[in-house]
Amino acid sequence: MHMGSYNAVIDMGSNSVRIVMYYEEEDGAFYEIDNMKQTIRLSSYVDAEQCITEQGIREVLAVLRQFRQLCSARAVSRVIGVATATVRRAKNRTEFLTRIYQETGFRFRVLSGEEEAYYGYLAVANTTPVTNAFTIDIGGASTEIVNVKDRKLINSYSFPFGAVTLTREFFRGSIPGKVEMKEMIEYVRAELVRHDWLMNSSHPLVGMGGTARNLSKIHQMMIRYPFPSLHYYPMRKYEVDSVFHLLLDQAPERMQSVQGLSKERADIILAGVLLIKTVMEHIGTTEFVTSNKGLRDGVHLESYLKRVQKPLLEDVVQHGVNVFMNNYKVNRTHARHVRELALSLFEGVKKLELHSYGAPESKLLDVAAQLYDIGRSINLRESHRHTFYLMIHVLLPGLTHRERILAALIASYKGTKRLQELAAPYESLLSEADMQMADTLGVLLTMARALDRTESGQVKAVRVQRIRDEIVLLCEGGSRPELELQAIEEYRKKFRKQFRLPLVIRWVEYS
Amino acid sequence: MHMGSYNAVIDMGSNSVRIVMYYEEEDGAFYEIDNMKQTIRLSSYVDAEQCITEQGIREVLAVLRQFRQLCSARAVSRVIGVATATVRRAKNRTEFLTRIYQETGFRFRVLSGEEEAYYGYLAVANTTPVTNAFTIDIGGASTEIVNVKDRKLINSYSFPFGAVTLTREFFRGSIPGKVEMKEMIEYVRAELVRHDWLMNSSHPLVGMGGTARNLSKIHQMMIRYPFPSLHYYPMRKYEVDSVFHLLLDQAPERMQSVQGLSKERADIILAGVLLIKTVMEHIGTTEFVTSNKGLRDGVHLESYLKRVQKPLLEDVVQHGVNVFMNNYKVNRTHARHVRELALSLFEGVKKLELHSYGAPESKLLDVAAQLYDIGRSINLRESHRHTFYLMIHVLLPGLTHRERILAALIASYKGTKRLQELAAPYESLLSEADMQMADTLGVLLTMARALDRTESGQVKAVRVQRIRDEIVLLCEGGSRPELELQAIEEYRKKFRKQFRLPLVIRWVEYS
Repeated sequence: MHMGSYNAVIDMGSNSVRIVMYYEEEDGAFYEIDNMKQTIRLSSYVDAEQCITEQGIREVLAVLRQFRQLCSARAVSRVIGVATATVRRAKNRTEFLTRIYQETGFRFRVLSGEEEAYYGYLAVANTTPVTNAFTIDIGGASTEIVNVKDRKLINSYSFPFGAVTLTREFFRGSIPGKVEMKEMIEYVRAELVRHDWLMNSSHPLVGMGGTARNLSKIHQMMIRYPFPSLHYYPMRKYEVDSVFHLLLDQAPERMQSVQGLSKERADIILAGVLLIKTVMEHIGTTEFVTSNKGLRDGVHLESYLKRVQKPLLEDVVQHGVNVFMNNYKVNRTHARHVRELALSLFEGVKKLELHSYGAPESKLLDVAAQLYDIGRSINLRESHRHTFYLMIHVLLPGLTHRERILAALIASYKGTKRLQELAAPYESLLSEADMQMADTLGVLLTMARALDRTESGQVKAVRVQRIRDEIVLLCEGGSRPELELQAIEEYRKKFRKQFRLPLVIRWVEYS
Repeated sequence: MHMGSYNAVIDMGSNSVRIVMYYEEEDGAFYEIDNMKQTIRLSSYVDAEQCITEQGIREVLAVLRQFRQLCSARAVSRVIGVATATVRRAKNRTEFLTRIYQETGFRFRVLSGEEEAYYGYLAVANTTPVTNAFTIDIGGASTEIVNVKDRKLINSYSFPFGAVTLTREFFRGSIPGKVEMKEMIEYVRAELVRHDWLMNSSHPLVGMGGTARNLSKIHQMMIRYPFPSLHYYPMRKYEVDSVFHLLLDQAPERMQSVQGLSKERADIILAGVLLIKTVMEHIGTTEFVTSNKGLRDGVHLESYLKRVQKPLLEDVVQHGVNVFMNNYKVNRTHARHVRELALSLFEGVKKLELHSYGAPESKLLDVAAQLYDIGRSINLRESHRHTFYLMIHVLLPGLTHRERILAALIASYKGTKRLQELAAPYESLLSEADMQMADTLGVLLTMARALDRTESGQVKAVRVQRIRDEIVLLCEGGSRPELELQAIEEYRKKFRKQFRLPLVIRWVEYS
């Protein structure tokens, strides 16, 4: 049944070793199917001669043997291994990697700091709505910062410190004192100040790596954030500060029990968050956004982009929509046709000044029109609820959380009451105006769906006209589509309720 | 991407014309992807000469032209058309069907009453846990009753009355009077009494068709039933009576607003439910169960069973599990291995008298072990919740509602607290003992999963022994599986909590 292939990326970092497995469809759409990490903290197995110790090598080998088993079982056909700061700096890296190859069969490429920065950037540029931003990828022993303009990498630098090394060098006890923190901040500032492109920006700082993920997770727990996604989770500077103070106030023995904090990170999280704070203050930005996609995803994306010969995904959102449509066996011809009809209705009604929505809203309608049907894969009964569930829980990259919720509401639209019911858990993320917009676009989408009920594209196009106090919907095509014309009749009432003018349906046969 | 094929069944009934479309995988697993009905009430277009009138023919043609569009758009490769009572009795059936073929290309087979009964039985026997029962399929103009013993059809009869014809013949006003109902009951009884196999049974009456579905839907609304499935929904006789009285008490103009009642059925529902009551009383059974699968599914199943050369699906539940595994890209080798390990643990622990569960519980563990991973297709994060959601909402045939909820709870098990949280909406269907059982089997399943964490089958088998006051888990295989042995360690605490004895893990290497 599986016509695609399984690929994996292994990332040997200074804090943890991780594997991510992807399933890749024939047409190139891909998604993560498994991942695993072992925190071995390789950066602490380096001796005075800058060599990885025998104990460190053994720890790595034990983990990689496990990963080898995972890859064999899943019939992974291609594994890309990359190693970062600790291996990059180790004097014995060649012997180290040769031994790994001999004992596990995995080949590792040692990334330069520049490459490490590039792959993080690549993940952010291809999975988020970011056009202008700084990205920061905090590893165990290095930190990469990139300046992104118009989705392009403009400047980048790999700093020689990370959450593990900063903790080890500056913090003695389990809770850092004021002086220790001040010393760390001064050291980091001295490093940052050497890069003149690293300043005066109101663009967000987009964070990757375990520190950023844990920071957002803790914050989501603190405020009982309702939307189940870390990816592209935004925080204001004062929110970052509040998590920092929460952590700082914990007695060491209670640190482990902070909700959202991973146990293996409890001892290095403070240095990591302090680093984020320091960078934000230095740049002058007030917004931090977490990217759940990082180095590993960048490495995987590069191999995909090479194959399709493109520097970046042209349309991040549409790429995600395609993955969705593949997974849930959507009839693409129909989905595209519903999109065309929905956008025609949107534009037609807009020209008559019955609404004043623009590009951001039509983008949501576009996504919703392609995905409205995915819930059917779960059950034909109450399929709109299943569409909503899937769109809330499956990552749709390139959209904000608010946009993801709105697209889900529009796609699953079945009337105002059900809209409100589905939206209820997420109301803290939506305004009254958002709800009104979802209601309006929902009506337009259900009309477009009715106009292709038989999925046969018989209503080829629609035009909307105003004749005196009536709105006339001209449906055009080759032969009269009974079922569609019957189905659209039922929406006249809803249209009138939305736009306060009666709707008349006319069939126009092509001669 | 789609390697399977689309098939459709059209059922030209006396009340409505329906199409069901199925997607069929290469390996034979199939599921419904779309259905549509138009209530044209063909039985009312029959003239004094027992001919279907020109108006009736036109109504049917209009609907079938719509269905033709649906089939073309979906690239349906095979359509099976069947016609029932009204066409069967029509004098002009040959001209009628010829004209349909000429104008729509659809061929219809006219089913005999016996065949109609058989197909309904086939659907029930292959999609429910039924072994001994009567089935009743109430159509517009005929009603088929079948006596099922050990999943085999023993007796069957097609009665010449249905919900539409009984209404027309016995009820004058919109609310039937006592005399009218009495006359109808007496007529039906006189028909039933002629079949000596139709009596003295404590087996349930399994109902198919719109009357049965609407009856259950109304009851589910009345009691705010939490589980979202009509299929195999059981009702006691007094519950059938309570719905009947609810309907009887409605003023005619309020009938349409009874929650769960379809508008097109409002005028014939009373005769239908009264028929069910009368049959139950005649047989002497106190249990009514609705089957959401009926004639159309039986017709489709027959073509499948012919291809695999079997009279019945050998294992209804496993067939459903296979469809699930296909849809959600489960690694089958791994799933089967987890099942083996889980069942070994179940038996091993049972032999030590640490639990006393038997075949019904091991069946639930069996299903759960194969499906625990399906939620991963939605998101790796919180995948246990997605597994639960899918198992609750996708039809798993051959199980009762209670069993479906329990299998979902075991499959998504992540500890007692989360079990209780997920079970909360369904607590009216579960006992305290059920919750305890799900907790115990959940622990065994998570242990089995840990024992194949790399999905590579390295822990080939397990044995459970008691040595003094310790339980020893012997894990056997060819080479030491580090990740699995590490993963299983984490379950020692949970095991102890469940079974009140410490667990020791031992690795036994095959020599």
